Amino acid sequence: MRRRWDTTRTEAFSDGVFAIAITLLVLDLAVPEGAFHDLWRGIVHQWPSYLAYATSFATIGGLWLAHHGLFSRLEHVNSKVMRINLLLLMAVSFLPYPTRLVAQAIRDEDVERAAVVFYGATLLAIAVLIGALWAAAASDRTLLRADVSEEEVQAILLRTSPNLGLYVVAIALAFLFPEVAAFGYLAIALVSVATAGGDRPSKAAREAA
Amino acid sequence: MRRRWDTTRTEAFSDGVFAIAITLLVLDLAVPEGAFHDLWRGIVHQWPSYLAYATSFATIGGLWLAHHGLFSRLEHVNSKVMRINLLLLMAVSFLPYPTRLVAQAIRDEDVERAAVVFYGATLLAIAVLIGALWAAAASDRTLLRADVSEEEVQAILLRTSPNLGLYVVAIALAFLFPEVAAFGYLAIALVSVATAGGDRPSKAAREAA
Amino acid sequence: MRRRWDTTRTEAFSDGVFAIAITLLVLDLAVPEGAFHDLWRGIVHQWPSYLAYATSFATIGGLWLAHHGLFSRLEHVNSKVMRINLLLLMAVSFLPYPTRLVAQAIRDEDVERAAVVFYGATLLAIAVLIGALWAAAASDRTLLRADVSEEEVQAILLRTSPNLGLYVVAIALAFLFPEVAAFGYLAIALVSVATAGGDRPSKAAREAA
Amino acid sequence: MRRRWDTTRTEAFSDGVFAIAITLLVLDLAVPEGAFHDLWRGIVHQWPSYLAYATSFATIGGLWLAHHGLFSRLEHVNSKVMRINLLLLMAVSFLPYPTRLVAQAIRDEDVERAAVVFYGATLLAIAVLIGALWAAAASDRTLLRADVSEEEVQAILLRTSPNLGLYVVAIALAFLFPEVAAFGYLAIALVSVATAGGDRPSKAAREAA
Repeated sequence: MRRRWDTTRTEAFSDGVFAIAITLLVLDLAVPEGAFHDLWRGIVHQWPSYLAYATSFATIGGLWLAHHGLFSRLEHVNSKVMRINLLLLMAVSFLPYPTRLVAQAIRDEDVERAAVVFYGATLLAIAVLIGALWAAAASDRTLLRADVSEEEVQAILLRTSPNLGLYVVAIALAFLFPEVAAFGYLAIALVSVATAGGDRPSKAAREAA
Repeated sequence: MRRRWDTTRTEAFSDGVFAIAITLLVLDLAVPEGAFHDLWRGIVHQWPSYLAYATSFATIGGLWLAHHGLFSRLEHVNSKVMRINLLLLMAVSFLPYPTRLVAQAIRDEDVERAAVVFYGATLLAIAVLIGALWAAAASDRTLLRADVSEEEVQAILLRTSPNLGLYVVAIALAFLFPEVAAFGYLAIALVSVATAGGDRPSKAAREAA
Repeated sequence: MRRRWDTTRTEAFSDGVFAIAITLLVLDLAVPEGAFHDLWRGIVHQWPSYLAYATSFATIGGLWLAHHGLFSRLEHVNSKVMRINLLLLMAVSFLPYPTRLVAQAIRDEDVERAAVVFYGATLLAIAVLIGALWAAAASDRTLLRADVSEEEVQAILLRTSPNLGLYVVAIALAFLFPEVAAFGYLAIALVSVATAGGDRPSKAAREAA
Repeated sequence: MRRRWDTTRTEAFSDGVFAIAITLLVLDLAVPEGAFHDLWRGIVHQWPSYLAYATSFATIGGLWLAHHGLFSRLEHVNSKVMRINLLLLMAVSFLPYPTRLVAQAIRDEDVERAAVVFYGATLLAIAVLIGALWAAAASDRTLLRADVSEEEVQAILLRTSPNLGLYVVAIALAFLFPEVAAFGYLAIALVSVATAGGDRPSKAAREAA
């Protein structure tokens, strides 16, 4: 029985979902209607929409970098990795919905708590799933490319852990200070983008080897 | 006359349609308006939307796995396969519409029956078309890769049949118990994802050969 | 100066636009609201939406087959082909808009004439542009793959002409009988899908050569 | 440590975002409602929508050509290029929002100034980011393909500068004559499309070398 897939079409399909989810976010930036007589104030007034947009964009962008990095180290994927990847894509394509919730709720104290917690839970699910994806791949070394070292496998496993902790802290914070937590989500996403590694050793590293 | 296509662009176009259809589903998860003062209850209250979302996501996900598996066994496609594939893509890209119908109708007894039957008919059409796609490909062995065995061809043909039966049963059920049928569709989709085979023999299988 | 592009990314970008345009069509199939108490009748009542959906889907599907066939014969593209291709993509991505117009207008005699003519003009523009794309490519034989024969080039040029005539006839018809013209558009699209050639000679043709 | 990425998936992901952003633009072409009894007049009356649609389409089209040209000269991308590319994709996927603003505002004198300035600022940001992308790539020659000459690197750097100046002029103009500036944006985009170079030397150039 055939139990493996090559990675090319999986990457293409995942890139499609990432690209669409990241581009659909803009559909929820509504033209400020009530304040249409004063467009600048209307735009400024919409800061929760922009914050939610930037956070979700940075989260998906950072995730795409991480996904790219992981798959570049895989030769094949097995059924387990494939299913975790589908769950990850489901969480990513779901993200525009809590993004919309946060954008609409953030100035209404009664609901902003629930919306920010719900949004954070989705971000946490994404972080758990990308961690699980690599853990599943790392548990079957025949899936990895020959040039991937044991240290690299461990380094990537370690790199996913802090995000889990940070999201749990930010969600806990959201029960008390939802707006602070909302900026916290953005900070976590920006750090993910800023620290993402590449998929090829730099020339210096290759020459040193 | 040229009567064959290579598979690369067909896979890329199909992946595009699958990725977009699966990501558009989220647009129909509406922010709970009436219940906005109590967001949690509003979210829970929307369970039919979530059920429809999860079912359509799992159906397209499972279909993508099956499609990936079929095309990895093809060297070329002929005009017949190409046209069946276009029909399949039409059914897939149509799916967000009955999904929306079910999500909106499921608590209104008068319409939920019709909506769940209509949704099931679309799922059945998808199952028939993916079966027909493989039947058409299998009927011209020059389209298949050299390493695809006769047993594999038959095994894949057989694997598509149970779904047809299950969908017919679920649609019949929908006339009596629409909500039960709705959960049945989800179960069929989850089983499809869980049992999808890969596109390469596992190492053990290759060594045994 | 560099004046050529390779075809890979152009195909990928075009496939993206085709796949998205074809999948966005479903967003305009609205849940029948007024008739929600009788879903079946509501669905049947919406036949203009379904007709417009099927016509646009078949048109884009047939166009994708033709585009695939053309690009499989090209080794490179020059700036002229690239710009015509961008115009073609613009017309294709514009198509959901007249599709929506037709779906909404077709039972209001005052506007259906204008809507069906406008829709037909868009279809005609698409047919003109795909013809112009091939004419531009054929006028610089260094762009073509070595194995593309002169007869093939002429045959493809000829194949695009009938559609132009048919669309002109259908648009003229639309001024008198808009609904007949609407079915005519569907018929032209279906014939395009049914007669599209492949991008590789069949085995028989190759053996005869 | 790995600090480079190959370009294939980056191109695929970018193409996905470009293709989706360019295709989503059509969703904001609304069926003329008030004027539905006279469709032709309603369509003509909507010229700001069409102008905004054409400008954004041409801008993204020209940008895609430029992006294609840049990446065809890169062997790898480093983290800096990757992050600038993500920012560029963010600006591109954001473009449908100011496009919508301009389309809705352009006949209301009070808001059209703000909308056209806001739209121009987004176009300027895109022009700055594509310039920065190439500057970052050019500053690390190990990223470039071996056959890219120093003159070519400088020529591309120079080609991005005029657009920056033109956008600054057009934005300044927008404070006085918003409608003139709006047509100015379209003109800049059309010139970008018309002057985009290819990614391969023409046959003549190669033979001369």
